[in-house]
Amino acid sequence: MNGEERLQRYAELALRVGDNLQPGQDLLIACLVEHAPLARVLAREAYRAGARWVEVQYDDQQLRRALIEFAPEDTLDWTPPWVLAHYDELGRRHAAFLRIVGDADPVILADLDGRRAGRARMAELSRLWARITDDKLVNWTVIGCPTPGWANQVFGRPDVEGLWQAVERTLRLDTPDPVAAWTAHLDRLERTAAALTERRFDALHYLGPGTDLRVGLLSSGRWAAARESTSQGVRYTPNLPTEEVFTSPDRRRSEGTVAATRPLSLGGLVVRDLELRFQDGRVAEVRASTGADAVRAQMGTDPGAGMLGEVALVDGSSEVGRTGLVFWNSLFDENAACHIAYGRGFRYLVADDREAEDGLNFSAVHTDFMIGGPEVQVFGVEPGGAEVAVIRDDRFEL
Amino acid sequence: MNGEERLQRYAELALRVGDNLQPGQDLLIACLVEHAPLARVLAREAYRAGARWVEVQYDDQQLRRALIEFAPEDTLDWTPPWVLAHYDELGRRHAAFLRIVGDADPVILADLDGRRAGRARMAELSRLWARITDDKLVNWTVIGCPTPGWANQVFGRPDVEGLWQAVERTLRLDTPDPVAAWTAHLDRLERTAAALTERRFDALHYLGPGTDLRVGLLSSGRWAAARESTSQGVRYTPNLPTEEVFTSPDRRRSEGTVAATRPLSLGGLVVRDLELRFQDGRVAEVRASTGADAVRAQMGTDPGAGMLGEVALVDGSSEVGRTGLVFWNSLFDENAACHIAYGRGFRYLVADDREAEDGLNFSAVHTDFMIGGPEVQVFGVEPGGAEVAVIRDDRFEL
Repeated sequence: MNGEERLQRYAELALRVGDNLQPGQDLLIACLVEHAPLARVLAREAYRAGARWVEVQYDDQQLRRALIEFAPEDTLDWTPPWVLAHYDELGRRHAAFLRIVGDADPVILADLDGRRAGRARMAELSRLWARITDDKLVNWTVIGCPTPGWANQVFGRPDVEGLWQAVERTLRLDTPDPVAAWTAHLDRLERTAAALTERRFDALHYLGPGTDLRVGLLSSGRWAAARESTSQGVRYTPNLPTEEVFTSPDRRRSEGTVAATRPLSLGGLVVRDLELRFQDGRVAEVRASTGADAVRAQMGTDPGAGMLGEVALVDGSSEVGRTGLVFWNSLFDENAACHIAYGRGFRYLVADDREAEDGLNFSAVHTDFMIGGPEVQVFGVEPGGAEVAVIRDDRFEL
Repeated sequence: MNGEERLQRYAELALRVGDNLQPGQDLLIACLVEHAPLARVLAREAYRAGARWVEVQYDDQQLRRALIEFAPEDTLDWTPPWVLAHYDELGRRHAAFLRIVGDADPVILADLDGRRAGRARMAELSRLWARITDDKLVNWTVIGCPTPGWANQVFGRPDVEGLWQAVERTLRLDTPDPVAAWTAHLDRLERTAAALTERRFDALHYLGPGTDLRVGLLSSGRWAAARESTSQGVRYTPNLPTEEVFTSPDRRRSEGTVAATRPLSLGGLVVRDLELRFQDGRVAEVRASTGADAVRAQMGTDPGAGMLGEVALVDGSSEVGRTGLVFWNSLFDENAACHIAYGRGFRYLVADDREAEDGLNFSAVHTDFMIGGPEVQVFGVEPGGAEVAVIRDDRFEL
């Protein structure tokens, strides 16, 4: 595939399967300046598909660095009121959102104060976005766009073409009909999610090197694949690629230790060898060979930031996993292996209001990190205490 | 000067002399994605100078093209409410603004429908910006940043280095102390403006090839240089470079014909050989060898768009003019030669409220174009009708 054809096919998939953009909708594309070539094709294709208004909000990692390095302390976590007005208005308009990830420089923040880097996030915007998505006001998706810096992190050299080919494979863009391939794949994931919901496990138990973790589940919670519908009935796929089934656990019942099985890229710094110890649902200890300060600062954002909001299962059949690559990017790496997220849970996955209030986690933070792999076994714990293999030797056993 | 040192010196000049950024101020930098290298240095230097919050709003000519090519008719001149909220809030905060100009592709819109291109502007935002600047709420400046596309338009080849050297010369960045050079230069321009105000001409009369134009002046109007002060007392320079003295004329009293002496770049298309005929203050005829449709569409924005809002005088001593280049960019070209602008006038230049209401032009449009040069003589018409040379043989005669 040449460059232009690649962007064209990618844009079509992202708008049709990812956003499922509707005629007359507004679309906000959020990305880095380095993603401009893809953003431009997306904007053009969105208008061609009948969008009413398309805007691209270009972000810049170097500005984020300048903020963290030089801005007054109070500015770090400030959300400008016009940004809230913007998102609020787009929510009320039932707009579509498309976010492009893929760091220009994955370690641009590595030498800065981790505490300031962890604090530098628009927490108020995160909370508003949580409300907009919990209320299913908008259809949205996240996709990746290779950059030289990202490719360098993956391959040790700026092999952008190699990274594009890997991304294409995970997106099934190399198949004759990617849209059909995604429909079939999402159907499969939804069947797995339904089977897990049916089992009504009381908890999950993860066992592997450095990991012995139990996470309680909510009795009215359900498992889902990343295919959702807005309040207006628009069906969309919030992540491309996606290989996971996931639910939001009981924030009160995480116990034990867990070791990350892949590095975690926090948009400018890398957290290596992360290990967390949970007690009574809450992170009691954070260890990492790099980036621990930034994780601790994130967890200080609000009371829910140090509790779990998501558990997700991925087995060895994942197209992302089968590339054999560490992508150093959560959108991809979380779809290569089982993962959990500290921070916010998903309200729509919990049927019972009372149970959601008591047990579902709330936070402005939501950070996924990878804890699965061939050496990690996952068991479902039945209400009586019996443990049933859910993933053994990197395969679902349901 | 190497690249980094150049950007550093430029940023310092723009923030000190252009914006005169104050400690604790917010700063909005508006530019194209192609200007990112300069925007990043400006952001860093702004924080170092004590800014509280710096944001960069990256625009993209290719998105503008997609809008004009594909968007529904009603979207073309739409201003999103959150953009108004944003600017309104920055006005109330007495923020600083810095705009970077310099097209990535000066003819990106050339093959599109000129009517749609002319209509595609956020007129509501222009009106809000006019109010913010008329009320002197914010300190702001406009500077240029060379791009390969712009350099190609100037030199017929993408000689970015050549364009940088020309820009540096016009900005006096090649002098030992650019800040001091600008202070002296602006003082000189202010003396010229004061001398013109003192003369109390009733009108200007332009005579040259294709030009025989009389423009009435307001009796309580004054001439100014581009050095202003906010309501908070911050003195700033809205254009860098600047070589002009200017006033806002009586919108009712433009008569005759005028031929542009340089091409006019409208941010994506070029207007060549523009000729306007005025009758009773209003443009009665628009001719051009390219771009006439876009000019006519602009003039259809509102009733004031086809009347004059500014007359500006520049003589042959201009550092911009002395480069001998056509910059294909109004920030530079308007400082190489006398120019006039159709559209909005400047409220703060007219002392008498009643006269401003009757004679000052109001519009969402303000487009400068060049009408001066060695062959164009400018006369001041005294209240009695006598004509006095103001610029003869490209030199002020005051």
